Amino acid sequence: MSLETEDQNRLELLLERLQEQTEMFLGYPVAKDFDCRALAPFLELPVNNLGDPFAPSTYQVDTREFEREVVTFAAQLLRAESDSWWGYVTNGGSEGNLYGLYLARELFPQGMVYFSQATHYSVSKNLHLLGLRHIMIRAQPNGEIDYEDLRETLRIHRDLPAIIFANIGTTMTEGKDDIGKIGQIFQELAISQSYIHSDAALCGFIAPFLTPRPAFDFADGADSISISGHKFIGSPIPCGIVLARKRNVDRIARSIAYIGNLDTTITGSRNGLTPLILWLAIKRLGEAGFRSRVVGSLEVAEYARGRLRNIGIDAWSNPNAITVVFPSPSPRICQKWQLAAADGITHLLILPNVSKAQIDRFVADLLTDMRPS
Amino acid sequence: MSLETEDQNRLELLLERLQEQTEMFLGYPVAKDFDCRALAPFLELPVNNLGDPFAPSTYQVDTREFEREVVTFAAQLLRAESDSWWGYVTNGGSEGNLYGLYLARELFPQGMVYFSQATHYSVSKNLHLLGLRHIMIRAQPNGEIDYEDLRETLRIHRDLPAIIFANIGTTMTEGKDDIGKIGQIFQELAISQSYIHSDAALCGFIAPFLTPRPAFDFADGADSISISGHKFIGSPIPCGIVLARKRNVDRIARSIAYIGNLDTTITGSRNGLTPLILWLAIKRLGEAGFRSRVVGSLEVAEYARGRLRNIGIDAWSNPNAITVVFPSPSPRICQKWQLAAADGITHLLILPNVSKAQIDRFVADLLTDMRPS
Repeated sequence: MSLETEDQNRLELLLERLQEQTEMFLGYPVAKDFDCRALAPFLELPVNNLGDPFAPSTYQVDTREFEREVVTFAAQLLRAESDSWWGYVTNGGSEGNLYGLYLARELFPQGMVYFSQATHYSVSKNLHLLGLRHIMIRAQPNGEIDYEDLRETLRIHRDLPAIIFANIGTTMTEGKDDIGKIGQIFQELAISQSYIHSDAALCGFIAPFLTPRPAFDFADGADSISISGHKFIGSPIPCGIVLARKRNVDRIARSIAYIGNLDTTITGSRNGLTPLILWLAIKRLGEAGFRSRVVGSLEVAEYARGRLRNIGIDAWSNPNAITVVFPSPSPRICQKWQLAAADGITHLLILPNVSKAQIDRFVADLLTDMRPS
Repeated sequence: MSLETEDQNRLELLLERLQEQTEMFLGYPVAKDFDCRALAPFLELPVNNLGDPFAPSTYQVDTREFEREVVTFAAQLLRAESDSWWGYVTNGGSEGNLYGLYLARELFPQGMVYFSQATHYSVSKNLHLLGLRHIMIRAQPNGEIDYEDLRETLRIHRDLPAIIFANIGTTMTEGKDDIGKIGQIFQELAISQSYIHSDAALCGFIAPFLTPRPAFDFADGADSISISGHKFIGSPIPCGIVLARKRNVDRIARSIAYIGNLDTTITGSRNGLTPLILWLAIKRLGEAGFRSRVVGSLEVAEYARGRLRNIGIDAWSNPNAITVVFPSPSPRICQKWQLAAADGITHLLILPNVSKAQIDRFVADLLTDMRPS
């Protein structure tokens, strides 16, 4: 099984290209400062975390023990009551959102889903897949849901169970919906059948370290939470964590004789490498390490806003956000720095690997671009 | 970001345990003879094959060029008409099945899904997720669908579009539904609205090399096909390929400004390492290599049946199958060799890495177990 020289060369060129492209990008919420070299030997084994990480399985080439530690760390950080939660490592934030909405549908098949217009496009896809009724709510200019529009819309549909898809950091502006306020609206309107899913893809490992702490987790009233692993932590493979109240998960569990397991995950055969990637990061960083990553990113984000404003660019951020929003520059700049643009705005994502020197280089490039030729 | 000695030790122990467990198992459809060491450097990069592999994307740390080669290889092998198909590398066979059924539902929201009772449990989960009506059809003792039961059931529901979930190798006995026969039943009953999804998780890379060639692919009438990558090819990460007729996929494409991409995949953020894993295998093996893997596995499967029968165990296989079925031995044996048991039977999966010497060791262990103590 040897590789032709030509193919070997292509692989090497690919590696070089990806290294260059990684060096340059500033526009995606993806940390680059992870170190997974210790996991290379696992690439030689058919690892598979088949089924539920908390149930026994006959397939033993697995890392489910490490996976349990990862989700337990996240559950504690997100203030889940002990023994009342369940979770697993997903293939990304989107799978975690699908899972949360799936649980909500099982509880309330006739429920109406409410989400703001700043919500990631994948959510519409998931809602369509699940066949859930839904209403899009206005977003405030900062990306946060418009609570007045939500209140009025809920009022009209008080006969239906309410399922809230809350953004804890929207993709474009890192706007955070306050699920405490949403819970108050439920109380005012005497809505007793409700479910809140928090999409904390980017902010799940940031928000617990902010002051004031955003209202987004289990103690604040969330029923399920999805976090991405490849965003604030960083990973060579998209991954994430989903957590949910155990009593809801038990409702959809089905006993499956074939694999000697409860089939509670979306995918069945599951990646056993990504739990190790997250485990490594958690063990290396600890809570203190996460906290200092957050502090560092916020500082560089502030620096970036200052530098952009100094050259006359109207840059802004939500409070305690690592996303710096500004009007879209030229297509050349967007392409070169891999900036995602929509509706005339773009953003820098100041993940922990982004340095002030990199911001300086970006600003210098912008200046070149703005100069009349 | 250094790791404590204790954690370092745990990781090393895990690696040792997984190496031992890999050595032993015979009961899962997972090849072990892959070699991905060349990909270790990619573990240092935030690779993400965001969105559709065939559409441009602003995120450039991707391997989508290699992914396109992988799915093109599979499309040719499975006789898709050129330019009329679409596909991507999935997180496993189950995602590919979900995708195929999702396409079927978009075409025929009122359609009825028919699948045999030998179908993998994950399919019920997917059908429930999609809210598709479905009827389970009897299976023949060999795992193949009971065509008479299918015909009679279709006859009763001729008013509904028919969606067939065909097993091309059931999990327990590797029974293969013949979609040519199923197409004939459609013709007899004048059913004009129909869709066939082939679940070729295990056999997608085996069946094209068999004589007679099973009726399962696009030329035989399939509308979509899902294959696992971690089964017959082998991979350290569960993965797969899904292929579908392009005209059906176009119906569910939604233009998404945010990532400058058509959002046609299930997951959005996607693994960029697994396409390289499959690409490496395809480049190393080529069609000739796949063919010799198939021949070798069938030979060892025949050897295993012979050895088991020689010690009085009633072992059997479907024609041209690498799955050797026999009555479940003791729990000790099942646990040690990681054999999945259901309804009193179990199986050996003779993937290309399984040697006659390993079969000899297994048979010797069985004999020890059968001897009165």
